Amino acid sequence: MATVDVPIALLGYGTVGAAVSRLLAESGHEIEHATGHRLRVARALVRDLDKERAFEPEPGVLTTDFADILEDPDIVLAAELMGGLEPAGAHVLSLLERGISVVTANKQLVAHRGPDLFAAAATGGAQLRFEACVCAAIPVIKVLREALVATNVHRVLGIVNGTTNFVLGEMEAGRTYEEALVEAQRLGYAEADPVDDVSGADAAAKMAILASVAFGARVAPDDVEVEGIEAVRPEHVVAARSLDMTVKLVGQATLANGGVDVRVGPALVDRHHPLASVEGAFNAVMLQGDAIREITLSGPGAGGIETASAVVADLVSIVGTTGSGFLQEDPARRTLPRLSSDELRSPFYVRIDVEDRAGVLAQIAQQLADQGISVARLVQNQTEDGAALHIVTHEASAGSIAKGLAAIASMAVTRGAPVALRVVSDRGVEELGWT
Amino acid sequence: MATVDVPIALLGYGTVGAAVSRLLAESGHEIEHATGHRLRVARALVRDLDKERAFEPEPGVLTTDFADILEDPDIVLAAELMGGLEPAGAHVLSLLERGISVVTANKQLVAHRGPDLFAAAATGGAQLRFEACVCAAIPVIKVLREALVATNVHRVLGIVNGTTNFVLGEMEAGRTYEEALVEAQRLGYAEADPVDDVSGADAAAKMAILASVAFGARVAPDDVEVEGIEAVRPEHVVAARSLDMTVKLVGQATLANGGVDVRVGPALVDRHHPLASVEGAFNAVMLQGDAIREITLSGPGAGGIETASAVVADLVSIVGTTGSGFLQEDPARRTLPRLSSDELRSPFYVRIDVEDRAGVLAQIAQQLADQGISVARLVQNQTEDGAALHIVTHEASAGSIAKGLAAIASMAVTRGAPVALRVVSDRGVEELGWT
Repeated sequence: MATVDVPIALLGYGTVGAAVSRLLAESGHEIEHATGHRLRVARALVRDLDKERAFEPEPGVLTTDFADILEDPDIVLAAELMGGLEPAGAHVLSLLERGISVVTANKQLVAHRGPDLFAAAATGGAQLRFEACVCAAIPVIKVLREALVATNVHRVLGIVNGTTNFVLGEMEAGRTYEEALVEAQRLGYAEADPVDDVSGADAAAKMAILASVAFGARVAPDDVEVEGIEAVRPEHVVAARSLDMTVKLVGQATLANGGVDVRVGPALVDRHHPLASVEGAFNAVMLQGDAIREITLSGPGAGGIETASAVVADLVSIVGTTGSGFLQEDPARRTLPRLSSDELRSPFYVRIDVEDRAGVLAQIAQQLADQGISVARLVQNQTEDGAALHIVTHEASAGSIAKGLAAIASMAVTRGAPVALRVVSDRGVEELGWT
Repeated sequence: MATVDVPIALLGYGTVGAAVSRLLAESGHEIEHATGHRLRVARALVRDLDKERAFEPEPGVLTTDFADILEDPDIVLAAELMGGLEPAGAHVLSLLERGISVVTANKQLVAHRGPDLFAAAATGGAQLRFEACVCAAIPVIKVLREALVATNVHRVLGIVNGTTNFVLGEMEAGRTYEEALVEAQRLGYAEADPVDDVSGADAAAKMAILASVAFGARVAPDDVEVEGIEAVRPEHVVAARSLDMTVKLVGQATLANGGVDVRVGPALVDRHHPLASVEGAFNAVMLQGDAIREITLSGPGAGGIETASAVVADLVSIVGTTGSGFLQEDPARRTLPRLSSDELRSPFYVRIDVEDRAGVLAQIAQQLADQGISVARLVQNQTEDGAALHIVTHEASAGSIAKGLAAIASMAVTRGAPVALRVVSDRGVEELGWT
């Protein structure tokens, strides 16, 4: 089989761009054997021609003028690794409309501008691939679109932000939230301004993309209900441990009753659940569907070379499917209503601080019962100035929990705001221990 | 985009065949949206036309004559779901030579006859895909061939046999090997004759396929060093727990120093290792490579509908890549020597039963030292008629462990044969606890 030369353009030549360039150079032989195509970096768009690069491109490859790429008739494939909505978005649109397929690692671009981008791809007859947007080298988009195409995937559970997973792991080891965040920054897992990670915004963009692909229904980042980890306190971690659980920032996307719900928030994960063992800055995604029951993929969720590996895989996949009409459509082919908060049920862990006197427990229990919330387990312990009630409920809707806690918060005997954390477990709550 | 009609032939219409037929009927719309192709079962080869089927095919689809399929000019795609080496092998060869692409779920056929089959595919210009051969719905072959093509994968660790994983889990819960096996048979996880599973032969065929694909080097089932779980005794499970480990049947394929080693055997897996949490009849595969560090995929490793899901994914992938020259090559493009047993190093757990008298420990320690084996931890406890030494070594080669144990076995003070089990851990042995 004669080898086909495939000149590629990179938009951006920073950490990921240089890593893509290096991978293509070093793995060229493997790629050629597997696909019969030789992928090489022909042009790369940069802001500064003279900056030092982690992996130097061939002479003449770098350019500061996007027109050099758009108007080069040899280029049929590009990778956008600039980040940010503009000018990356305008460049990607121009390329796709001209029939040049694009691989992007830009999750904000795909999450916020997906419909426009896929429309441009359809117009130009090009492909848009975006594996690197979610969980770096973990090939969850490929698996959803190509391996599980005949499986009605109805739930996606994910730990999709490594920074928060690292911070919560450090809290498990005894650090406070503030100490853990400083450690994450020292190790390079968290930015100097960590708000995008700890607020859940980064995870929300990824879950929006995952839900759109898994359910074939458009989910925008604004459709995702988000809670970050800023409010997780050491006592929640301790309570989780006493329940043989661990606190994780969990993304959860659900397709049920013709509606979609996507949310990100701290949750208590049963130690026997596959997501519980995801440690440090790793990511994991569990896909639940009719034919597969559940498949879990885990690995490093960030990093330059890991992200580059996903970009190269997408480049290779485009080469392998060009001309077949395969995977050129927008994966989100429909719009579905949001599930109401009454339709989404799960067990919850609830912590309520109260005055320590007779009758309080009965009042609290009545408020929960009024919302149809059934208590599976309850432990009361002393605090400095009263008592703390730790409750695990049977399956309840998010709506009834919110109403019940609002009622409890307004009681005179309650101190501070009650806290509710979703419980993620494959087992019934009656099987969960309390030690 | 106009929909392309794709008539498909099934060879075999048993549990998996009927499930493929059902999935294609029920997910036809999703597949059509994703790929622009409508896959339908046009012919199906069976032995008995009148047998009742779990999902009835359209009238006129069933045939007992393979020529009806081979000579049907409309058929460009087939799935072999008969099992066994013949006549399945001859049928698949005929189809491939004629340019009809084939998906197979037959691991013995691919493991034993891979070179012939891929040669026929090359001759005919057809594709051979085999995702369903390994771990059912877990798309590990696709991930290796398409997502990790630029990552030098140098190690594959797998729990690839659900029957043995279930049996070992039951032993962990306190059952004997015999009780656990009976329970596995009662639940349908083990055959009436379980030898293929418990001997490790099934896992060896799967690891041979995984290693061939991961390393691009031919590994036949006979190249795999195999030990089953028949010799695992409750005291090994107890010792593992006291080390905060669990006993698993682990397949391990290693590419190092230009050589390959593939082995299957019981091992002690650190509880913090991703493979430790694989419970019941589930499977998991961990892929370690340069750019990805490690990616772990887990899910159900068997079952009719789960296997059918993988078959349909392969059918869809062939449709998506036809005419691109992609993935038509034999994934094993070279032959590499076997690693010598001195080149493969890991920590080991060793149990030695000895007479309980002065000087024995010193003699044992000397024999280990003579082979350059360094002891990381040692616990001695009393047995009914002597003492048991439990040793965790630092990294040692399989060759030196074998020599050391042979020398110890020949000592007068030793009772029975010493047992060595590989330790699988991401951490150094000095970090492992002993409780």
